[in-house]
Amino acid sequence: MLQIFSRFCVVIVLALIANRTIANTDSLMISRIYHQSFYHGEAYENLRYLTKDIGHRITGSQQAAAAVQWSKKLIQQLPFDKVYLQDVKVPYWSRGAKEQAIIVGSGQKLNVLALGGSVATPAGGIEAEVIEVELLSDLRKYGDDVRGKIVFVNKPWDESLVETGVAYGLNSAQRSRGPAEAAKLGAVAYLFRSLGSGIDDYPHTGATRYTQGIDSIPAMAISAIGANTLSTALKHNAKLRVFLQQSCAWQGEVSSHNVIGEWTGTESPEQIITIGGHLDSWDVGEGAHDNGTGTMGTLDAIRTLMKIGYKPKHTIRLVFYMNEENGVHGASQYGLKSKERNENLIAAIESDAGGFAPRGFDIKATQEAVQWIQSYWKPLFEKSYWVSRFLEGNPGVDSGVWGKYYTKALMFNFRPDPHRYFDLHHTDKDVFEAVDKRELQSGVAALASLLYLLDSQYRNIPN
Amino acid sequence: MLQIFSRFCVVIVLALIANRTIANTDSLMISRIYHQSFYHGEAYENLRYLTKDIGHRITGSQQAAAAVQWSKKLIQQLPFDKVYLQDVKVPYWSRGAKEQAIIVGSGQKLNVLALGGSVATPAGGIEAEVIEVELLSDLRKYGDDVRGKIVFVNKPWDESLVETGVAYGLNSAQRSRGPAEAAKLGAVAYLFRSLGSGIDDYPHTGATRYTQGIDSIPAMAISAIGANTLSTALKHNAKLRVFLQQSCAWQGEVSSHNVIGEWTGTESPEQIITIGGHLDSWDVGEGAHDNGTGTMGTLDAIRTLMKIGYKPKHTIRLVFYMNEENGVHGASQYGLKSKERNENLIAAIESDAGGFAPRGFDIKATQEAVQWIQSYWKPLFEKSYWVSRFLEGNPGVDSGVWGKYYTKALMFNFRPDPHRYFDLHHTDKDVFEAVDKRELQSGVAALASLLYLLDSQYRNIPN
Repeated sequence: MLQIFSRFCVVIVLALIANRTIANTDSLMISRIYHQSFYHGEAYENLRYLTKDIGHRITGSQQAAAAVQWSKKLIQQLPFDKVYLQDVKVPYWSRGAKEQAIIVGSGQKLNVLALGGSVATPAGGIEAEVIEVELLSDLRKYGDDVRGKIVFVNKPWDESLVETGVAYGLNSAQRSRGPAEAAKLGAVAYLFRSLGSGIDDYPHTGATRYTQGIDSIPAMAISAIGANTLSTALKHNAKLRVFLQQSCAWQGEVSSHNVIGEWTGTESPEQIITIGGHLDSWDVGEGAHDNGTGTMGTLDAIRTLMKIGYKPKHTIRLVFYMNEENGVHGASQYGLKSKERNENLIAAIESDAGGFAPRGFDIKATQEAVQWIQSYWKPLFEKSYWVSRFLEGNPGVDSGVWGKYYTKALMFNFRPDPHRYFDLHHTDKDVFEAVDKRELQSGVAALASLLYLLDSQYRNIPN
Repeated sequence: MLQIFSRFCVVIVLALIANRTIANTDSLMISRIYHQSFYHGEAYENLRYLTKDIGHRITGSQQAAAAVQWSKKLIQQLPFDKVYLQDVKVPYWSRGAKEQAIIVGSGQKLNVLALGGSVATPAGGIEAEVIEVELLSDLRKYGDDVRGKIVFVNKPWDESLVETGVAYGLNSAQRSRGPAEAAKLGAVAYLFRSLGSGIDDYPHTGATRYTQGIDSIPAMAISAIGANTLSTALKHNAKLRVFLQQSCAWQGEVSSHNVIGEWTGTESPEQIITIGGHLDSWDVGEGAHDNGTGTMGTLDAIRTLMKIGYKPKHTIRLVFYMNEENGVHGASQYGLKSKERNENLIAAIESDAGGFAPRGFDIKATQEAVQWIQSYWKPLFEKSYWVSRFLEGNPGVDSGVWGKYYTKALMFNFRPDPHRYFDLHHTDKDVFEAVDKRELQSGVAALASLLYLLDSQYRNIPN
């Protein structure tokens, strides 16, 4: 018994020593990465170009095409071994003229944005009475009364959640499924309280879906202040009428691309670590946090490793996905093509939650792997770099889509601070000025450090 | 052996069950605290009044006096058991007319602010050659050449540190001791590259100290851009002359106050937990992050506990300290008076690092206590509230000063995200608009939750 225990102790002590040596090397590398990113990072200046010179870039638009060409050139300036465009057929939806929403009689204007994917109103607009509910399920009790009305879903944001992504998730199905459900009951239009934190007059757009076989009805997001105004007016006059007008439309399918850069591995080049974000955005603001910081940040993370002379063991593949916002066709195509070619996609890092101060990574992996990461990697970040969140969680949207073909791939979803993201998500407020340079470059350093650890220690992670 | 082990297991399991029950109660309380703070918090609106209606409030100024009277009334509106002003004699230093710094010949203006505590230049200004060094110790090699010159200490900020407080600490002694050291060598003025992150044209003021028996010389902070401009000009012409002018002066001692509110404990009223921040600020910007968020945040933390019906076991004493920025006389007086009265100050929470997203608390306590807190409290915050930093560290400046009389007091120093703080610290940029409401109220909730845990579980914390 004592002998076994002694042997056990020897093994433990040797493991501690070995681990200590690795940890010291890692600490030095991470310190060099942070230094490089803060002093010589280019994510912030690249983001300025993407947002200010190209602007917002909805899938299928000229700006999206310009972003593809520009970012390909940008990647080509770095020592990637291969840079190419991957063809993707994407849908193009355009907003048309500025939307109108007016309370008839008082003439009170309400700030609205068509929901992405919505149909237009008739050219002359729609005027109808309004049924206000908090939940779609509440519509049932109105029965046939819904017919000919505007359905107004007015569920306020849960302000008590620090994890704003959860608050978003609580109500996002009402945005995507709402128009179809309201149409089924005979509604003529769908007005949806914006999915966003805080109370202001900015509507938040976002994707909606129709169900085949149901007549599509126009769908709009209304600002929180607009929703409160309308709700108050309805309390005074339940019969009031609202005028809505928008001219958005699907413009058919167009050719677009994922932008891909490969940095070939020196030991296991056939094993591929995918890192990236999405290049498209909504057609409001400048798509700065969503997701200019994700693309420019992951590119700069790789650039950081290149600049400090790192040589990857596995192939690092940067992917700027097209069409995350309204279809996810880019990520679907990436997955299909990879599967077709029988590629070995072993891991992924995605950045699509903004460019705020980095807090950590959600990890899709076995419990053992997550615990291993918490034991060995978290201590490298926690004290000096204030990155301490390494929890089991979901992958990003794009990785999640191609991940269905690669269920064993280890997936990391970058988590910046969540407090301010949904103040500006999918609005005119998501502009370059809302990004802080230091926070962005701190995120680049966190991404680069994780990429370094993942590449250099992949084999040690338990499955 | 087996019997002892069995007993051990029983104790462990019982402890786990007991702890689980406590943790569930705590989780519920913390959830109520966050809900209250996000939905009904008043820190943000109180901060608006303090910054916009009162403005910056340097010790001894009329605004500082107004802040004392206003905040006393504010505290009196809540069910504190005692609200009073504690007399403090404080020094009053005033800036006088806008400072000037001009490169003679080119006429290039440099953005400067007198360092707090500095003397004026002669009324007509000073014109002299400049000796540029990175470190005060580099002055030695110039020997007698320093005589009659302006000493220009131009040490850039270490941008690679996420922990910006450490970057600040690396160079703050050169600000406080610099003028006296330069004067000793015969310099006529002291020009100091601002202690702040990023490169912009805002000078950062801050305290400086003179040594008795040495003739004081005027001391100024120059913006990072100004410092770069001057340094480049000196490379072209080492003999260039700079003109400096400022009219700041000590105005003598005046009467001021700490503002104190007491919420009497129901079980051990003689044991006092102090919580607070400092009411004074520098005389630039609006003192929003430094330290309007600290005073308004800690007040709102107590208010949050009052609103949810909590009854404290110990006496909770809110202290708005006067004169943290240039003398710390308020905290000194608080300590002296408490000691005189033989008060039992058992613990402290201080908030003086801004109102950004809360990250955790530095803890001055025994290693056992810190580990206990990490084991039992950290899990309550980490996942849902994104507060995960509970590390051994220094107390805040004010608690640290009175803490010399109470070396066993358990001290918590609130740590918000450090990325942006030193971009605006002690500058004209530290205004209300730089504070995000959601981040501020998230910090209030973190402070209130910690105060709740500290008060309700103080007896369980190992010493």
